[in-house]
Order: sequence, then C-alpha cells, then structure tokens
Amino acid sequence: MILSTDSYKGVRDFYPEDQVIQNYIFNTWKKVAESWGFVEYNASTLEPLELYKSKTSEEIVNEQLYSFKDKGDRDVVLRPEMTPTVARMIAAKYNEVSFPARWYSIPNLFRYEKPQRGRLREHWQLNIDIFGSASPYADAETIMLASDIMKKFGAKDEDYEIRINSRSLMDMLYKELGIPEEKSKTVSRIIDKKDKISPDAFKETLENEIGDISNKLIAILQSKEGVFEQISSSAETEYFSQVVSILEKAGIQNLKFTPTLTRGFDYYTGVVFELFDTNPENPRSIFGGGRYDNLIEDLFGKKVSAVGFGWGDVTTRDFLGTHSLLPKLSSTTEVWLAVAPETNMDEVYRLGNELRNKGIKIGIDISGKKLGDQIAGAEKRKILFVMVVGRNELESKNYKIKNLASGEEKSGNLDEVIKLI
Amino acid sequence: MILSTDSYKGVRDFYPEDQVIQNYIFNTWKKVAESWGFVEYNASTLEPLELYKSKTSEEIVNEQLYSFKDKGDRDVVLRPEMTPTVARMIAAKYNEVSFPARWYSIPNLFRYEKPQRGRLREHWQLNIDIFGSASPYADAETIMLASDIMKKFGAKDEDYEIRINSRSLMDMLYKELGIPEEKSKTVSRIIDKKDKISPDAFKETLENEIGDISNKLIAILQSKEGVFEQISSSAETEYFSQVVSILEKAGIQNLKFTPTLTRGFDYYTGVVFELFDTNPENPRSIFGGGRYDNLIEDLFGKKVSAVGFGWGDVTTRDFLGTHSLLPKLSSTTEVWLAVAPETNMDEVYRLGNELRNKGIKIGIDISGKKLGDQIAGAEKRKILFVMVVGRNELESKNYKIKNLASGEEKSGNLDEVIKLI
Repeated sequence: MILSTDSYKGVRDFYPEDQVIQNYIFNTWKKVAESWGFVEYNASTLEPLELYKSKTSEEIVNEQLYSFKDKGDRDVVLRPEMTPTVARMIAAKYNEVSFPARWYSIPNLFRYEKPQRGRLREHWQLNIDIFGSASPYADAETIMLASDIMKKFGAKDEDYEIRINSRSLMDMLYKELGIPEEKSKTVSRIIDKKDKISPDAFKETLENEIGDISNKLIAILQSKEGVFEQISSSAETEYFSQVVSILEKAGIQNLKFTPTLTRGFDYYTGVVFELFDTNPENPRSIFGGGRYDNLIEDLFGKKVSAVGFGWGDVTTRDFLGTHSLLPKLSSTTEVWLAVAPETNMDEVYRLGNELRNKGIKIGIDISGKKLGDQIAGAEKRKILFVMVVGRNELESKNYKIKNLASGEEKSGNLDEVIKLI
Repeated sequence: MILSTDSYKGVRDFYPEDQVIQNYIFNTWKKVAESWGFVEYNASTLEPLELYKSKTSEEIVNEQLYSFKDKGDRDVVLRPEMTPTVARMIAAKYNEVSFPARWYSIPNLFRYEKPQRGRLREHWQLNIDIFGSASPYADAETIMLASDIMKKFGAKDEDYEIRINSRSLMDMLYKELGIPEEKSKTVSRIIDKKDKISPDAFKETLENEIGDISNKLIAILQSKEGVFEQISSSAETEYFSQVVSILEKAGIQNLKFTPTLTRGFDYYTGVVFELFDTNPENPRSIFGGGRYDNLIEDLFGKKVSAVGFGWGDVTTRDFLGTHSLLPKLSSTTEVWLAVAPETNMDEVYRLGNELRNKGIKIGIDISGKKLGDQIAGAEKRKILFVMVVGRNELESKNYKIKNLASGEEKSGNLDEVIKLI
C-alpha cells in the first residue's frame, strides 16, 4: 500500500529552504537573549496533565489540549505553553538556582486549534523569563529585550507598537467601580476579547456580568487619563509609572498604554504587554507577556516572583513577510565541488578535508553527472560558490572558485582562492 | 493543592548547566554536518500512525509507540525515529529536491521504554542521510562524517571501533546455506540480538527457526574469511569491498568487519554499521546506520536510494563522560555587571547597551544585594568575568574587568577592558 506523503494536519514540514528561515529567526532570538545575559534551558515535550488544570486558560485546557493516557495509565500532555514547565523547574531547584535568574528557551508547543493564518497545531516559541526579582527593571528589561530583537529583525519603531497595561491597576479600577472581586477574572477575560467581537456583543456580555457598571467601565477604558483619574496613587500606580519611565529613558518610543489589554492567561498579576503590528492590513498581535508573581507559589508552594513573555515563530514569520524583512538566505554549504570526469574521487575527498580544515563548509558532487548539470545543481541548492575539480587542478594544486551570484572568479592555490568566500 | 515538581517519567529537564552540555553536543554535530555539505531540515513531532505500521521494527510499533487519537479521531504518533518522516518528505517533493541530497536534523524521539542507562522515553538524535546516490562514496561519506564527529569530540581511534557489515552479503550467505528467503529477516533479527542473550539461548532460537543449518551459520559468523569463502564474488561483494577501501584510503583505522551485525530495523538493504565503545567497562553501541534503498519506494512509491544513520544524545553523553571528554563549560553570559549601592540603574543599562553593541554578552545584577554577594552570584552562575559598576566608573568612564577563574584584572576605558575577554 502506498501511503500519503501529507504531514499530520496543522503542522509543518521544514524543508532545508524553510529551515534556513526558521534558523534565522531562532538564531536572532538566541543571540539577543544571550547578549542580555539569559541562559538557555529546555524540558521534555511531555508533561503531566495536572500541571495545566488550575492555571492555564480554560479555553486551552477544555478545548485545545493534546492529552492522552500512556501505557502506564498516566495522564500525559503535549505542552501547550512553557510557563507551567519552567515554573515547575524553578520550584524543583528553588534552593540551588541563583536569583534573579534570567532564563530562555525555544520549545515547540501544541494546541488543537482550527489551522489558520498565524495559528497552527504546533509552533515554536521564544520564552523569556526573569525569576526572583520584584524590581521594575525586570519588567522593563523583558520589554527592552523584545524591542532589541525587533531592531535586529530590521523592524522600525513605526512598524509596531508595544501596548502596555497592568492587571493590578485594573483590579484597583474594578474595586473603585464596585465590581465584586470574584468577577474580576471574568471581566478581564471579556475585555481581552473586546477586539474579536462586535461593540454591541462586547457591551452585552459585559452587562450580563456586571450590570450597569459596564457603561462606566467602557467609557473609562477609552483613555489613559480616564483610568488614572479613577484610581488613587499607590504602590501599584507608582510601580507601573516606573516601568514606563525606565522604558522611555531607554529610548523606547512606541509604547502605548492600553487599558483594554488584559492577556488571556489567568496567572498574570501585574504589568502585561503585547507587541502589535501597526500595518493596517495586518493589525495583529505578534506576541505578549507580563508579570506573574503568584503562579509558582500557587502551583508548587515556593514564593518566586516572575515576569516574562512567549514569542511565537508563526506570527514572527508573518510579520517579517508582511514588512519584507526576510533576508535573502543562501545554503549553509559555502562551496560545491563539481567533479570533472575521470577524476580520482579519493583525491577529491582529500581536497574536501583540506577545505574543511580551513573552516570552509563544502559539499562534493557524487552524482557522476555532466559538469554543467553539477554547477546547475549547486545553483538550485542555493550554494554561493562552486569549484571545478579535475585531474589538472589536483596535480597543479591550482584551483578556481566562482561566485555563482556575481560571476566573480579567483584562481590560485587553496589559500588564495578561499579568500573569495 | 501543591503539585509535584517531578517531570513526566523517563524524560529530562535541562537546567542551564545541562543545556550547556546538550548545546555542546548539538553544536559539534551541526558544525561537522554542515562542513560536509549537509543541510538542515525538520518536521513536527507528530506523525500519522500509518507511517510506522509496515516498516518500523515490530518491537517498537507493538510495545514502544506513543500513539493516541486526537480530538478529530485521527491516529497520531509521537515519532519514535526520524527515517519514516524524512522518507515522507523526500517522496512529497521528489520532483523538486536536488539529488543526491545531503540532509541532517536533530529531532527529539519518543519510545515507551523502561528508563535505564542509555535509554530514556525521549531523546534527541542526529540524523544524517544521503538520498539519491547508489555510489559507495555515499555509504563511505556517512561513516567518514561520523568519524570526523568522533575526532571533534576528542575521541581517539582506540576509544571506539566502527563495526561494518552488509545486509545483501548476509542475504547471499543465507541463500548459499539454503535458508529460505522468507526466513531471512527473522534470522537477521535473531543474529542482531546475539550479544544480548546467552550463547545457548542464541543457538536454540536459531535452531528453532532453521534447524541444522544453524550450526554451520554460527561457525561461519565467527570470521570475515568464513563469510567471504561461502559467497561467490558479485556486484554486492565488490560494492562492499569498495566502501571498505574508500574508508581505509581516507585513513579510517578502526573499521571491523562484523558478520553478526544486522541492526534492528527491517528496512536496511545494504551496508550497515555501528560505532562501538571499546572501553571494556562500557562495551556499548553508541549509534548505527546503513543503506535502505527500498524504503521510500515501499512506503510512497518513489524510487530513491538512501543511506544514513541516527546518533542519540544519551549514549553520546555517556560515552563522553566515560572517556572524560566533556569540556569544562562556562555560562554563555560573558560579563556580569555588579552594581554598587546608589548607582543610577538607567546609566547601568546604557553601559550594558554599549557592551552588547561591542558584541559582549552581559548580565546586569538587579538584586540590590551587597557587592560581595553579587560577585559570588556571578561565580555560582559560572560567568567568567565580572565588572563592578558604580558612580565613579560611570563618571570617569574608567572600568575594571576581572577574570574570576584566573584572578587576572584589566583597567581602562571600555575598549581596553574588553580585550581581556
């Protein structure tokens, strides 16, 4: 029986030409994260189900979780997000970790969703977190880092805005307006969906929950001034202003206080933020994060404050594509050795070793095809340089390298020709 | 309720100090693979169940497969090996791929096994494959590349041996001895288990299958000469000798013809090989591979020859540990900025940007702890350099960097002090 060559629904195959783009994104993330002193961690794709039952959003747990029973009757999950995993790891080595700890990872995550633009069943995500610091510099640093990554991707300030809000400010506002405390999470979740539903539906859902207060709340949410007029100054308002001030001093221009921003996850406790594409044709969230000071204590009984974000590869790829920021990427193979007829292959392999020892990434053509076809093959593989090797070259040790893009050539001994690369 | 901080059974958490080792292994694999012209691909962890039903070993499919039904009633598998996936990808773009194609990947793989030394439920594996070449140079190149990786890990020739055999030679031998063709796969599987069972049990199992011929077969399998005396020379024997000769000419000393080597997977058709630790206290297989010319045609109806191997991280880590080959690895963070009391943090962040722009990976201490504790924290994080920043340093722009391992110090402006790194 001949099988289908389709992948599982909603996931991707990364052919070498796709993986080059993926690696460009991952390497940019990695480089910037490490330049800010973040160290890499990782964990298994599999986690116990119980990890997600209390704190991950209900929508994910009830509708989108990949869970199953293993052969030992354990409830296992393909992780839908990384935060519970890293919270578990921090709690497990609470006495050994040096706080504040700056950690990053690029895990793949799974959600059973209807595949659509920006959403797939498996995606990769940069996770950036600072554990064990209650300083506003920790919140600000995660946003500075994100902004640095955007710069490294070539994005300009006007290409995106950083929307910022605070869960604790919103809780103060709800209290001020007389919204019962047990309603605050539900109200936050409704506000989070504001842009996804019609104004009327939004108003109605909110009214069902909190009655007449909804009118006042909707009016207040229109502006920064509206919010700050309602709540009296306190440690929370002071903290939020400090984060904003640190970011402004660091030259971050595109910050936008957005009272309707609440983020989906229940575990956020303080500052929340989201990067948003400003392209009117693609007004989408690229990623977001925030402070979650209670999660580790709630789940594992260890008090560790935390702030961080998760940044997905799919929305990143869409953003880079929309703004024409994807660089022209060639193969990781630098030089293709095209082999003339009747050349001793053992000698070609010896030459290959010499080039590798000089730090050059080479591929040897073992197809036995005509030289012209071998060179065309190098072009098709997006390899930039080609070197024809035959008996003459091997005897004289005089070689020629050609840049297939520019047509430039260089002849001479090995050390001379590799200068072209 | 407080949750357990244990990971799922049989998988690993990679704390930063573990991930550094993992990255050392992955980067060595990556660098060598790319220097031989292999290009990276990847795919989802999830695959349709049908991909494994016919060709993956029965033991894996029946006992070790992580499979479940998704919410859409599809049979899904967490891939137990990468070969069926890459075969699927090659077949799907059969008309677009440039053959011969040298592809590599470092996927994580899942098997429901009893966790023990060298075996876990999730492991990572370097997969190296050449598609679309029937040349003995393709077989030889995968072994040369493996040997190059061992060198880069610092292994000496005497630390391991490369056992080599050929499935087609063995099939000829079986035929010569009168073993029925339909028995050949079973016989191969029994021979593959030879070293895992007692000589008596081996003899008995083989006898049950092929009767008296088993005695003769066991005698022949003792030596290379025994095998080659039985079979007449042919294209198969010639091919095998060529592979061996290419490897010997390339200076590979530790090759050992091993007629009992057959490898577990049913899909191998030609040369098979295995790297074996020669340490008498740890006489284990590190990894293996071989030629599988029929798999892509059998599964997907496209005729593509193939040769490759899969090399796991767990056995590699054990090997490097056993032979004291794990390098002393420090943090990816190069310089820790310890901050004196009453220093303007915005200025420290500005200095951090300057250092990052010069390509230095830095972390800023935001703990507010005493300077001595901040420096101790850098040591605990395995960061090599520390730089104390206070009002004096920021005003005078005169800095001091200290190497925490050697005690060496350097003072001067930023460009001068970073020369120490």
